[in-house]
Amino acid sequence: MSDRREFRDLASPEDARAVVENLDIDPGTETVALADARDRVLAERVDAALDVPGFDRASMDGYAVRARDTFGADEAAPETLDLAGTVHAGEEPGVTVEPGTAAEISTGAVMPDGADAVVMVERTTATDGGVEIRTAVTPGEHVMLAGADIAAGARALGPGTHLTPREIGLLAALGVDEVAVQSRPRVGIVSTGDELVRPGDPLDSAAGEIYDVNSDTVAAGVEDAGGEPVRYPHAGDDFDAMERLLHEAADECDLVLSSGSTSASAVDVIYRVIEERGDLRLHGVAVKPGKPMLVGTIGESAYVGLPGYPVSALTIFRTFVAPVIRDAAGLPEPRTATVTGEMAVEERYTEGRLRYMPVGLVEGGDGSTLVYPVDKGSGATTSLVDADGTVAVGADTEVLPAGRTVEVTLFSPDVRVPTLFGVGEDDPLWSRLLDRVEAPRYLPTGTADGRRRLREGVPDVAVVAGPERDDGPGEELGSWGREWGLAVAPESEIDGLSTLVDGDYRFVNRDGGSGLRRSFDAEVDALADERDVPPGELTDAIDGYELTTGATESPARKVAAGEADAGLALRATAAKLDLSFVPLGTERVRVLASADRTGKASVERLTTLLGDLDDLAAALDGFEG
Amino acid sequence: MSDRREFRDLASPEDARAVVENLDIDPGTETVALADARDRVLAERVDAALDVPGFDRASMDGYAVRARDTFGADEAAPETLDLAGTVHAGEEPGVTVEPGTAAEISTGAVMPDGADAVVMVERTTATDGGVEIRTAVTPGEHVMLAGADIAAGARALGPGTHLTPREIGLLAALGVDEVAVQSRPRVGIVSTGDELVRPGDPLDSAAGEIYDVNSDTVAAGVEDAGGEPVRYPHAGDDFDAMERLLHEAADECDLVLSSGSTSASAVDVIYRVIEERGDLRLHGVAVKPGKPMLVGTIGESAYVGLPGYPVSALTIFRTFVAPVIRDAAGLPEPRTATVTGEMAVEERYTEGRLRYMPVGLVEGGDGSTLVYPVDKGSGATTSLVDADGTVAVGADTEVLPAGRTVEVTLFSPDVRVPTLFGVGEDDPLWSRLLDRVEAPRYLPTGTADGRRRLREGVPDVAVVAGPERDDGPGEELGSWGREWGLAVAPESEIDGLSTLVDGDYRFVNRDGGSGLRRSFDAEVDALADERDVPPGELTDAIDGYELTTGATESPARKVAAGEADAGLALRATAAKLDLSFVPLGTERVRVLASADRTGKASVERLTTLLGDLDDLAAALDGFEG
Repeated sequence: MSDRREFRDLASPEDARAVVENLDIDPGTETVALADARDRVLAERVDAALDVPGFDRASMDGYAVRARDTFGADEAAPETLDLAGTVHAGEEPGVTVEPGTAAEISTGAVMPDGADAVVMVERTTATDGGVEIRTAVTPGEHVMLAGADIAAGARALGPGTHLTPREIGLLAALGVDEVAVQSRPRVGIVSTGDELVRPGDPLDSAAGEIYDVNSDTVAAGVEDAGGEPVRYPHAGDDFDAMERLLHEAADECDLVLSSGSTSASAVDVIYRVIEERGDLRLHGVAVKPGKPMLVGTIGESAYVGLPGYPVSALTIFRTFVAPVIRDAAGLPEPRTATVTGEMAVEERYTEGRLRYMPVGLVEGGDGSTLVYPVDKGSGATTSLVDADGTVAVGADTEVLPAGRTVEVTLFSPDVRVPTLFGVGEDDPLWSRLLDRVEAPRYLPTGTADGRRRLREGVPDVAVVAGPERDDGPGEELGSWGREWGLAVAPESEIDGLSTLVDGDYRFVNRDGGSGLRRSFDAEVDALADERDVPPGELTDAIDGYELTTGATESPARKVAAGEADAGLALRATAAKLDLSFVPLGTERVRVLASADRTGKASVERLTTLLGDLDDLAAALDGFEG
Repeated sequence: MSDRREFRDLASPEDARAVVENLDIDPGTETVALADARDRVLAERVDAALDVPGFDRASMDGYAVRARDTFGADEAAPETLDLAGTVHAGEEPGVTVEPGTAAEISTGAVMPDGADAVVMVERTTATDGGVEIRTAVTPGEHVMLAGADIAAGARALGPGTHLTPREIGLLAALGVDEVAVQSRPRVGIVSTGDELVRPGDPLDSAAGEIYDVNSDTVAAGVEDAGGEPVRYPHAGDDFDAMERLLHEAADECDLVLSSGSTSASAVDVIYRVIEERGDLRLHGVAVKPGKPMLVGTIGESAYVGLPGYPVSALTIFRTFVAPVIRDAAGLPEPRTATVTGEMAVEERYTEGRLRYMPVGLVEGGDGSTLVYPVDKGSGATTSLVDADGTVAVGADTEVLPAGRTVEVTLFSPDVRVPTLFGVGEDDPLWSRLLDRVEAPRYLPTGTADGRRRLREGVPDVAVVAGPERDDGPGEELGSWGREWGLAVAPESEIDGLSTLVDGDYRFVNRDGGSGLRRSFDAEVDALADERDVPPGELTDAIDGYELTTGATESPARKVAAGEADAGLALRATAAKLDLSFVPLGTERVRVLASADRTGKASVERLTTLLGDLDDLAAALDGFEG
């Protein structure tokens, strides 16, 4: 491969930021109706074209008077004035207030000629044909003079003003029904990569196809930043088409983004287009995730090439590109939401470049904020939602010890720390129980990992399954039973563990960290005891004993797909997938809380929920509360 | 008026909040395309319907091998394997990796049969028909197993999840192209009040008409809160039409809001509709601003009546209604943005009820945050934008002394404290200069108020005009000159102050706090000296000397409207309004900075801007830099 594709000469993050900021993105201005102006940015100053209010306005219900006529009036010695008439809001006064008279007036009405003050209705008493005034008022009292709010010609709002409901209110008061605003930058999104399929379309996994994650993610990010995403059709492996699309996007947009160009030839097309019609300004940046970033121009448009892995693409987008879109849209930098916390575990680094470490947050037992790394590799899309923000780890940092204070930049100010953080067994009842908890986070990494991490003190709870053990950490909050065994095809001859061992069947197992697997192994041990052979002899006889897959339903799904004869499964899963079920036992699933978290509100709420599992268990075959 | 319209029996704010929260607003659910799902809220749990990745995937560019074949290989003793073929991303492998062979493979490609690990390209050397492997790999190395990211059947996202770009990415990875989300609550906005005119339509000020501020403001607030505003046409003073509109809105919406019902009969219509078809649950709340609030139901819809004054309407909306809309939309409570600061001035209260005091913020010279009350009366629309948030002042608080620490709830987390806060003279050059400052706030309340507030230590700068004085507070940052005199009709005979005094003309003055007025008075004094009469004799002779209006252009606008013969004005204003101009002098406008703020970045930037006013002055008649 060529040097340039290996990104050997990496720019520093600061240089990369400067290069992206220097891209000239000017979307111009446009006029929008006031009703559509929310969240837009004024392109020019707005001066008041009229006085607000446009007339001397009564600011109380009461009587419009000549103030002089009230001088000396009080509760003990009221002054009586003749009633000259009535003025309602929204009508031209048909009356003049002569000396010795008053006009009944409503809040917001035009002050009639002659009157210079209003007496509140509470300080008056209507009489026959007149009104008793029980207080003195000064000229101008309870009157808002024309232009007193804002006068014609005065500066109302400056250019660059972000229009929230409050500014929209002022514009409405000025009678403005359309305003000149900054246009939203048009951001073209070009999806490259032969393997990408649009969500909703059928997927050929055997041919290595995957769903296109970045187009939707980046489009949503563009909208968040105040830009207008423009998606271009997927070019597939037709490089001429890809070239045409890049040209088209550059002609139509202020900025073009591409991502996912994992195939070498796609990168070559992008280089060719930039070199022919534009200018390559940066090529590779020393951050992780996100090294393979391109910055340049194509024709009149700016161009940024994002990495292909979703977490990398979104990190680079958020760190380098979103601020520039926001700036071009005229929007203020978002309030950076940062949280200070302590590393829950030690983390080591060998990279030698700036790293944006994705982290999750959890509230510790003492109310402190604990920070734990979330790293499933950049290729994992679940990392997108399992983290709350990032910690910037300098290129020369080799270790962050547990307890070290770090600053976490949240993905957005809207990010809420999950109320409950759990790790452990994948279980269908637990999935449904979580639906009743507000904002939980759960990593279904298995019973063994749940126990290990509970011992480290990171999660609030671990969910463990398998043969009963009492050596686990934490306090049990509750438990339920689930029937497990083998999921087999409806016409299968497999009727128990012995037939599986003795026959010629393809089996699919769960991995060693799952509770289900430990229950299975215990059953194999028991059969080995019965037959008086070493357990290894039996497991060697099971074709596929070592073939493990990720989650509870996975083995049964292989059976349903015709790829195996039997899979380690729950009765509930077999029922869901319309398979037959060979029961081998019932195991308990237990929820264990970290000892220091039992007083946490979400853990207490969970304990209450665990107290009544009957309806959840009743909805799942083979479960008991 | 009836008791109920006087809102004598006020609910506590806590009771009001509880009543509004108990309104049953359930907009239901709907299905939207993933591309439209940003900022929506999941209505139900989403489980993975497929494995991600859907195949065992190479996570590096390199060679797919049988790990066993690499055991023992290192830089000193490389292992050479035969090249079996090549696998690209997005294609079905056409090759099987037999013992002793390797297949070139791209990141993201399907692992070919036989291979169980990938050797990074950097640790290999291509040879003729083969590849030299310079490192050992373990089974599974640089391979992501099918379902390792998320396995079919596993819980992906829970109900109530707020969809940001990250969650949209995970849904895309799962191939989901549409999702069930909470519907946005439909919020009907019914505008009542005879005096209201829609922005953009002509306004008859003499008849007391004003623009409808609340419809646009509240609609924007509803959108901010995640609701969908539905505007109904203005019913005017046709009460049957108003009743029909309320019924129509209640039938079509989840919540109906009305405001601005200042006329007694409009309130009666609303009461009648609620009493006939619904349930009045609350009527008046003990907060300021916002006392006249109604809560109830109309048919199946919830109903809230907001006060008519814009600041009151928006305060009540934001405090009581927005949280309920947000909750019905399933959106999380917004992160409350609060700022702690010190009262810059003393503030006294006599109300005896909870008050949400609108305040502005300014950074003091020592970096502290100073808080000052913004209160122009609830009827003022400029209060909407002159404040940054509110301080809740308890019913029994009588005084907040200067220096007292208070907590300010910002109007939204997006609120940015103005970088520069100024008070003083209204001046066209200054208005344009402010366009060059980022996020300034300026209150054009006149020279006298500018000096007073600068002495109190609140604003960064004051802008003062008028006859030269050296007793002002603060340090002068810069100044410019402006020619002033009388704006008169083009055919006017007025040619100087003497003709104005001696003839029979209608004059319009500026108020006593403006610098322009002080220059005028100085000129009158000079003429009185010349004639050897008391100045009062001259001012009495000027018809309208006491008739003052709000801003720089106001007197000239009266002349342009034919309502006066002469107005105190700048040459620039006369030119702008196509009037003739009678020069009386040139006064300097000076920008004074508070002594403790001269080092503030925005003040330094202002000083630089003031150093070159030539282009601004050149664009305005009668100005000199």
